[in-house]
Amino acid sequence: MLGAAAGGRQGGGGIHRFGEDAVGVVVSLKDGHEPSRAAFDRLSGLVGDDLKAVNQLILQHMQSSVEMIPRLASHIIAAGGKRLRPMLTLAAARLCGYEGERHVGLAASVEFIHTATLLHDDVVDESVLRRGAASANAVFGNKASVLVGDFLFARAFELMVADGSLEVLRILSRASSVIAEGEVMQLATANDTETTETAYLEVIRSKTAELFAAACAIGAVVAARPKAEQEALYGYGLNLGIAFQLIDDVLDYSASQATLGKTIGDDFREGKITLPVVLAFRRGDEAERAFWRRTLEEQEQAEDDLERAIALMETHGALKDSVGRARHYGAIAHDALGIFRGGTFKDSLNDIVDFCIERAF
Amino acid sequence: MLGAAAGGRQGGGGIHRFGEDAVGVVVSLKDGHEPSRAAFDRLSGLVGDDLKAVNQLILQHMQSSVEMIPRLASHIIAAGGKRLRPMLTLAAARLCGYEGERHVGLAASVEFIHTATLLHDDVVDESVLRRGAASANAVFGNKASVLVGDFLFARAFELMVADGSLEVLRILSRASSVIAEGEVMQLATANDTETTETAYLEVIRSKTAELFAAACAIGAVVAARPKAEQEALYGYGLNLGIAFQLIDDVLDYSASQATLGKTIGDDFREGKITLPVVLAFRRGDEAERAFWRRTLEEQEQAEDDLERAIALMETHGALKDSVGRARHYGAIAHDALGIFRGGTFKDSLNDIVDFCIERAF
Repeated sequence: MLGAAAGGRQGGGGIHRFGEDAVGVVVSLKDGHEPSRAAFDRLSGLVGDDLKAVNQLILQHMQSSVEMIPRLASHIIAAGGKRLRPMLTLAAARLCGYEGERHVGLAASVEFIHTATLLHDDVVDESVLRRGAASANAVFGNKASVLVGDFLFARAFELMVADGSLEVLRILSRASSVIAEGEVMQLATANDTETTETAYLEVIRSKTAELFAAACAIGAVVAARPKAEQEALYGYGLNLGIAFQLIDDVLDYSASQATLGKTIGDDFREGKITLPVVLAFRRGDEAERAFWRRTLEEQEQAEDDLERAIALMETHGALKDSVGRARHYGAIAHDALGIFRGGTFKDSLNDIVDFCIERAF
Repeated sequence: MLGAAAGGRQGGGGIHRFGEDAVGVVVSLKDGHEPSRAAFDRLSGLVGDDLKAVNQLILQHMQSSVEMIPRLASHIIAAGGKRLRPMLTLAAARLCGYEGERHVGLAASVEFIHTATLLHDDVVDESVLRRGAASANAVFGNKASVLVGDFLFARAFELMVADGSLEVLRILSRASSVIAEGEVMQLATANDTETTETAYLEVIRSKTAELFAAACAIGAVVAARPKAEQEALYGYGLNLGIAFQLIDDVLDYSASQATLGKTIGDDFREGKITLPVVLAFRRGDEAERAFWRRTLEEQEQAEDDLERAIALMETHGALKDSVGRARHYGAIAHDALGIFRGGTFKDSLNDIVDFCIERAF
């Protein structure tokens, strides 16, 4: 149903309202609640038992006689995170009719890769916060974060080897090198206000969406389904991942985030060039571009600069249109699932696309 | 022949003379030349064609459309390095009678893992030099070094997957997590003069010797030889690797290095706790321990402190005995090869043990 309706979603009004005069954009508010959160909870429920097994496996495989490793790893792994990527592996496998247990180990492997990249990301971004708490590098130092990231990455491969599928190993080793390429690309465009939308998309496709795609595709592999289903799930994950990252980048300038008590403006303070910036920069006049150059390239920021940045984005519809771009990829993700028979897993995977776009947390 | 003589090597005098009154220890000088270098050149010659193919594969697989990746990678990969680990894979495979080409890709994979760890090592150690030239992190920054390290590590796994042996993947993914554990262990003991010899050995076994062991063991795997030969090669590599690292640590305080124009004292300046320090600290009096604490723990170093450190090591036979410890592991490496039929590859692998212990470059 959702898949069929996907094409109409992109232009479809009504669901998302954007404050005309508010500082920032209000994403995902039908009536002041968080309707999309229900979709996430529904998927959590569907894969609940498997996800418990994944969490146990994660705890087990992050152990080491080197005491600092489980301490640092549990700081980032056990401290939460939505577990969205492993949930995708679990749900994709079930969507393909898989009834075994192999998807559990592979989902843990996906989460290890994700966690390793988070640890290295935070070092590279010099972040002091992660999910509202002190980042691992802030607590344990950059050195330990680099090395424990390496450890978790190696453990991810040990888990895949234990599973024994060369096809899964191929998909996830390729994803890992693409992710690293995306991160280096991002480094090269950092603080560069001239970054094009095309370059930005290439970065998020590599650094974020590729792992979503791989996480989904391996669900078809364990289920021994035909290549067409593997590719459909790959396409679903890829487009979902792009939409997810686009919204992540929008939320960093979102007033609704601020009202929910979440920090906003991290990307702005770091001078990250995300789509809202790319659009506002290109649609602005010379004075505005000078503002973006001063704040993001030269990193000279005054107290109310974030507010001004959000106001400029509002003026130019940069946040609204970034959400619009996300809807485009969301629509493709919906259609990618078209070849699968209907059922709770298909519905749930469709709903999760809308969750990623409409989420306000 | 060398294998048979191994037992007698440990106590065997004559080959190594240690300057009684020189500052530092003269390692590997029979008559002022570098006799052991010939062993390295002989192995290079034996695997020469294969090694060329490895280098081509390395150049090919470090390519990326992300321009900074091949630039940074070639800085560290193409800039030299002995290629000792891939040579071990090549020679081990040939020792096992292997006549195919799979060992070439796996040797490249081993070198990629090694290079990735070097990149991350230099970030963690804040090194500005690597092989006498500016380190990658000094030229390209820590961030790029972390991410390109990740890329090369992922590429290593892509190469293994292309080869298709799950046993090789098992050996090298395990080695990768053990290496990371060793690096974290080293971080935990950094600047701690109380570090025991046992703890030091555990660090170098993990961070260095494990990759030597894996590099050798996979030679038996591609040759489809029985487990006994795989384990023999693992043991050879492990003990060779321990000896190699012990000598590396000795050379950092070696006068012969200084006369060869190599920098010495890097470990001292970084406050690294290596075996020469462990022995000198434990054999010294309270005043000497205060010296080690000031220079290595508190990192307060005056101009002639390195000279004093070397003099203390001389007084307590710390360098000489570290070489003696290396000979012990060298002897075990020799004996590990005992089960293989004699021939040029066996001779060469035996000679390389002596090269690693006697090398003065």
